[in-house]
Amino acid sequence: MSASDHPADGLDDVVHQRHRLGILVVLAETRRADFAYLKSTLGVTDGNLGRHLQVLEEAAYVTVEKVFEQRRPRTWVTITKAGREALNSEIAVLDDIVSRARRSGQD
Amino acid sequence: MSASDHPADGLDDVVHQRHRLGILVVLAETRRADFAYLKSTLGVTDGNLGRHLQVLEEAAYVTVEKVFEQRRPRTWVTITKAGREALNSEIAVLDDIVSRARRSGQD
Repeated sequence: MSASDHPADGLDDVVHQRHRLGILVVLAETRRADFAYLKSTLGVTDGNLGRHLQVLEEAAYVTVEKVFEQRRPRTWVTITKAGREALNSEIAVLDDIVSRARRSGQD
Repeated sequence: MSASDHPADGLDDVVHQRHRLGILVVLAETRRADFAYLKSTLGVTDGNLGRHLQVLEEAAYVTVEKVFEQRRPRTWVTITKAGREALNSEIAVLDDIVSRARRSGQD
C-alpha cells in the first residue's frame, strides 16, 4: 500500500489545525469577520488567534486589515480565493474520512 | 456568541492531528495493524509514527504490543473502546463542519 492510499495524507496542516479550520469555516460563512468576533466564536486567546491568523496570512488564505472605526482600532479578516479553495480541499478529504469511518463503524 | 457555538471547538487535538486521525481511521477498519503497515499506509517515518502512537497510547486510545513472530520483532497496535469512542466523536464533529462548509459554499 503506498503513502497516497490513505485519505488522511491529503490533509494540509495549515488548514487542518483545529483553530485554523474553525477560522476558515467561519470566514467561508461570513466572508469577513473582525478579530473580536473570531476570538469569541472560537474561544481562543488574543495571542493564539494572532498566531493562527499569521499562519493563514502567510499561506495567502486570509487577508488581515487594521482600520480605525470611530477612533477605535478594528482588525478585519477576509478569506481569499486560495483560502476558499484550500478549505474546499480539506472538506473533501474530511468527507472521505467521515465516509470511511462510518462504513467501518457499521461492520 | 459563546465559545461553544462553533463545531471546531469540539475537536480534540489528540485525535484531530492528521496522522493520529489517519492511524485511528485505519485501526477502526482493521481493529489492529502492525507498525510496518501503519507506516507504509500513512507515509510517515518510524520516529514520527512512534511519537504519535505514544500520544494515542497515553490517551488509552490504542494498545501497543511488541511480540516476536518467527524470531522477528513485530509491533501490533490495537484500537481500544475509548479510541473508537474518541474517533466517533471526532467524526461527528467533522461531519458537522463538512455540512456547515457545504451549506456556506452554496450561498
